[in-house]
Amino acid sequence: MHLRVLKRLLVGSPIPSEQAQQERLSKPVALAIFASDALSSVAYATEEILRVLVLAGSAALALTVPIGAAISLVIAIVVYSYRQTILAYPQGASDFIVAKDNLGRLPGLTAGGALLIDYTLTVAVSVSAGVAAVTSAVPALFPYRVILCVVALAGLTLGNLRGTRESGKLFAFPSYAFIGSIVLLLGAGFLSIVTGGSAARISPPALDGGVAAPLTLFLILRAFASGCTALTGVEAIADGVIAFKPPEARNARITLAWMGTILVTFFFGITVLASIYAVVPRPEETVVSQLARRIFDDSPTYYLIQGVTTLILILAANTSFADFPRLSFFLARDGFVPRQFAHRGDRLVFSNGIVILALVAALLIVIFEGDTHSLIPLYAVGVFISFTLSQAAMVRRWVGRQEAGWWWRAGINGVGALTTGVVLVVIATTKFSHGAWIVIVLIPVLIGGFLIVNRHYREVARQLSLEGYGGPPPLKHTVLVLVGDLHRGVIPALQYAKSISPDAQAIYIEQDSEKTRVLQEKWQKWGLGVPLTALPSPYRSLLVPLLRFLRRLQHKDEHHLITIVLPEFVPARWWQHLLHNQTALLIKGALLFWKGVIVTDVPYHLKH
Amino acid sequence: MHLRVLKRLLVGSPIPSEQAQQERLSKPVALAIFASDALSSVAYATEEILRVLVLAGSAALALTVPIGAAISLVIAIVVYSYRQTILAYPQGASDFIVAKDNLGRLPGLTAGGALLIDYTLTVAVSVSAGVAAVTSAVPALFPYRVILCVVALAGLTLGNLRGTRESGKLFAFPSYAFIGSIVLLLGAGFLSIVTGGSAARISPPALDGGVAAPLTLFLILRAFASGCTALTGVEAIADGVIAFKPPEARNARITLAWMGTILVTFFFGITVLASIYAVVPRPEETVVSQLARRIFDDSPTYYLIQGVTTLILILAANTSFADFPRLSFFLARDGFVPRQFAHRGDRLVFSNGIVILALVAALLIVIFEGDTHSLIPLYAVGVFISFTLSQAAMVRRWVGRQEAGWWWRAGINGVGALTTGVVLVVIATTKFSHGAWIVIVLIPVLIGGFLIVNRHYREVARQLSLEGYGGPPPLKHTVLVLVGDLHRGVIPALQYAKSISPDAQAIYIEQDSEKTRVLQEKWQKWGLGVPLTALPSPYRSLLVPLLRFLRRLQHKDEHHLITIVLPEFVPARWWQHLLHNQTALLIKGALLFWKGVIVTDVPYHLKH
Repeated sequence: MHLRVLKRLLVGSPIPSEQAQQERLSKPVALAIFASDALSSVAYATEEILRVLVLAGSAALALTVPIGAAISLVIAIVVYSYRQTILAYPQGASDFIVAKDNLGRLPGLTAGGALLIDYTLTVAVSVSAGVAAVTSAVPALFPYRVILCVVALAGLTLGNLRGTRESGKLFAFPSYAFIGSIVLLLGAGFLSIVTGGSAARISPPALDGGVAAPLTLFLILRAFASGCTALTGVEAIADGVIAFKPPEARNARITLAWMGTILVTFFFGITVLASIYAVVPRPEETVVSQLARRIFDDSPTYYLIQGVTTLILILAANTSFADFPRLSFFLARDGFVPRQFAHRGDRLVFSNGIVILALVAALLIVIFEGDTHSLIPLYAVGVFISFTLSQAAMVRRWVGRQEAGWWWRAGINGVGALTTGVVLVVIATTKFSHGAWIVIVLIPVLIGGFLIVNRHYREVARQLSLEGYGGPPPLKHTVLVLVGDLHRGVIPALQYAKSISPDAQAIYIEQDSEKTRVLQEKWQKWGLGVPLTALPSPYRSLLVPLLRFLRRLQHKDEHHLITIVLPEFVPARWWQHLLHNQTALLIKGALLFWKGVIVTDVPYHLKH
Repeated sequence: MHLRVLKRLLVGSPIPSEQAQQERLSKPVALAIFASDALSSVAYATEEILRVLVLAGSAALALTVPIGAAISLVIAIVVYSYRQTILAYPQGASDFIVAKDNLGRLPGLTAGGALLIDYTLTVAVSVSAGVAAVTSAVPALFPYRVILCVVALAGLTLGNLRGTRESGKLFAFPSYAFIGSIVLLLGAGFLSIVTGGSAARISPPALDGGVAAPLTLFLILRAFASGCTALTGVEAIADGVIAFKPPEARNARITLAWMGTILVTFFFGITVLASIYAVVPRPEETVVSQLARRIFDDSPTYYLIQGVTTLILILAANTSFADFPRLSFFLARDGFVPRQFAHRGDRLVFSNGIVILALVAALLIVIFEGDTHSLIPLYAVGVFISFTLSQAAMVRRWVGRQEAGWWWRAGINGVGALTTGVVLVVIATTKFSHGAWIVIVLIPVLIGGFLIVNRHYREVARQLSLEGYGGPPPLKHTVLVLVGDLHRGVIPALQYAKSISPDAQAIYIEQDSEKTRVLQEKWQKWGLGVPLTALPSPYRSLLVPLLRFLRRLQHKDEHHLITIVLPEFVPARWWQHLLHNQTALLIKGALLFWKGVIVTDVPYHLKH
């Protein structure tokens, strides 16, 4: 009862099913909602490039801008490619659906598994990057980063369990504040360079004196792979077309183009600035924070930028709290994950998916100590697996349907598939030993799990199907009341047994023939006419004689159904249960998997 | 299944009830059985006196012999006093029964609680003293004493769960070997003094240079109190009169006199020898071991004495494994402890009492790190509480009955009660801060528990009694089948419901009216003629509409009984349970304490 009150306080009152309608979004609001994941990655993507290059010494940092340009090109290709997907799926479709529809079950499940991992990592990475923005501004909080992450995660989980009706308005402010503040940062940064202001006075990079690694091609590719985390979340708009105001597909494609433009501008802009300002990555302060501090000193503007960055990152995590449960719902509907994921809670949200996501993300944050940089190698693999499968599926679709202009569209998606496929190989190779192997191992494990679960559900459906069912055999039914004594608590059980069968009989396990005699005397008066049989138990066991009796009854007829009625008096207080032999529990446990036996408690409630 | 095989291997096959007969013992065998507890205490009682006196410096050790003499006098009084008890209770009676019969319930429960504590401490003290005899002989084992104690305890527990048919023979050897070896020790020790042999060359006590405490009266009384542990177990023969060959009472009284004589001789003998040989107590080696080593060097005789001492101490612990479960049985029969303690396991022993005793004793040994000396202050309080109550009860009995010679017998028991009462006050005072307070606090707590349990059992008996019962009200019974779909797993439940009531109806919780339509169509063909009612659930809750429906049904008639039949398909493997909504469990949980509602599962077993 008290738990229920607590749940209502935290989660709110139930919401009726008919309120389950989609809110339709204008383009600016849709941008705010769907872009938070993609845009927020500019908060850490540049830093990941720098972190790899700096291993080869400060001279290697000169490669930052070319690598940034290459990643920007990949972003443009993927955005353009997804615009084709929207044309084909005007109702919207996740990579899982696109891959399943056009390539088949196994590629679909691969994309599904990759996406589940991707969503989980989005939460872990975004929350820890958001907390990193805070601890960069307030270094005193750095030792408490894991706790801060877990608190933020708990807040997100609770908010999502409540369900967010007003999500549009909620998202618009932080997303546009972030866009505004990055525009401000880039504008002020470049202005300072042009005017030769104080902030542009480039200080030499303060590298720790260590032996630098050689600048191999492998290292350059690794830097490229690290920066590709900028692409995470690009697929979100294609997935959510249905949420746009009509004409949905057109509005979604325009919004996707806006988002791609902003993303490339921001990512490349920050990369160039970081290169000019010669920012060197440090564990305790993010690159964006260093840039903002150089440009705005410790002014309120600096703190505003950090605050807004944290907000957008938390909101990016929030999008996964919608995506993960929704994908789980699709997988559950198709019978690939436990059915519980398809159940909407009383606030109309998929509560089970939300809770699982939060728990796994929390585990990741704790294991990786809230360090964004350590989580990144696991991150991009899943994203690029689903990109590649989804684009390849689109090629197959265009080629298969041969609609007008199919070769052009197939070409665009083909370039997309090829590009993302190559990037996937680069990421998997260069990040393998840094953590990508975990995801590469995990995906087949997930697929195996999906298939086992699916086989079970199909087998159950087959066994339960009424198709070709000849009807049940005639029922043979015996009712037994198991008694240990005769008192007021037993009478309702006798009465009940008589009411459900005219041939009910009572069974008594005899340990002492003298007690049997006393019982039989009482039975004359109070036995309600139910015949009493005493089964001798020389070894004082309750179960052995009972089971032997049942076996003898069922021996004659396999389909003989037996109901065992157990009189059970229920104490008024929990501790009083400890003062009574747990006979009923024992019998129920022993008969749990005994076929053809039904155990029915007839309770007699004690008063105090 | 495998657990059952393991249990049979460890504990043996079940024993039929008719084998529950008492083995009748001759006086020598009875002495061996009942004396092990009392006699074994000479292995540590003298040492406890020395340990206190040595605090006041080596000169204080001169008081050892007078204190030993005073304790010997107390032993003689208590033994003589218990001989009167045997006269009055020729069937034998524990202090609990004697106090309860003659002084009333509360003193009886006080004695009962004190004895339960006493028995538990006997196990803990005897096992750790037995292990101390081993580690004295083999000092390398000293660091492993706690593990050794726990292993010995586990062996005792297992042996007692098997039940010991051959206990007489088992006890005779070690008891007489112990008596023989102490006779040998005392004989050789005193002979050496008389002949001026090498062993009698008294070395000056090697005391650690520390500030000695002043030799106050309090310290002397504390030394006396410590030595009184020699009396533990003296009551055993009076408790077990029924086990003797007839004439039981006469044989028991003779055996008690023998035991008293041996006990006083051994205890006083060792005390005097320790004093003459100026043995100084050390934590790593017992006083008896030091004496034996001085007299016999490291000869085989020395090791024999240590080995036999260990054996008798383990056997002393074993007597509590009979006493504690028996007393628990009496308390359970009278309804003062949970009834489970009155249940004989399949080897005819009170298994629950044995297991509880072993667990608490093991806990004590671990907490006190297997150190006999730390456990002793807790020990004697309980023993002397039950001595005093039992002797006082006897006085009351003699005075009340006024049989021939009553004043003489009352006088003897009066002296016994007075002596043990005074000793009790001395022990409680001088040992209070060393641990006796634990027992003094624990006994009222135990009594409170006894009374609460008793009140509950009496209240249950009152509520269940058929006395003045007018018979049950006529039964109004409705059968509902709760369905979520219609498939092969549901058919047996429908069939069952029809068989137990011609008016059974099916209930469906509707979340989606389209699904209801599909179900109703199927129902036409396969519903077995059971009418189907759909309850709308706008909030998707299964429970809320169901509970509302039940409440409405029962609203009309409080005694309206409702059976809810739940079709439940049972997966073949445990992990498959996780893949299904635990609806049945949820409903059973919600209705567990709902009056007048019976939940019946009709299982449908899936094949694989």
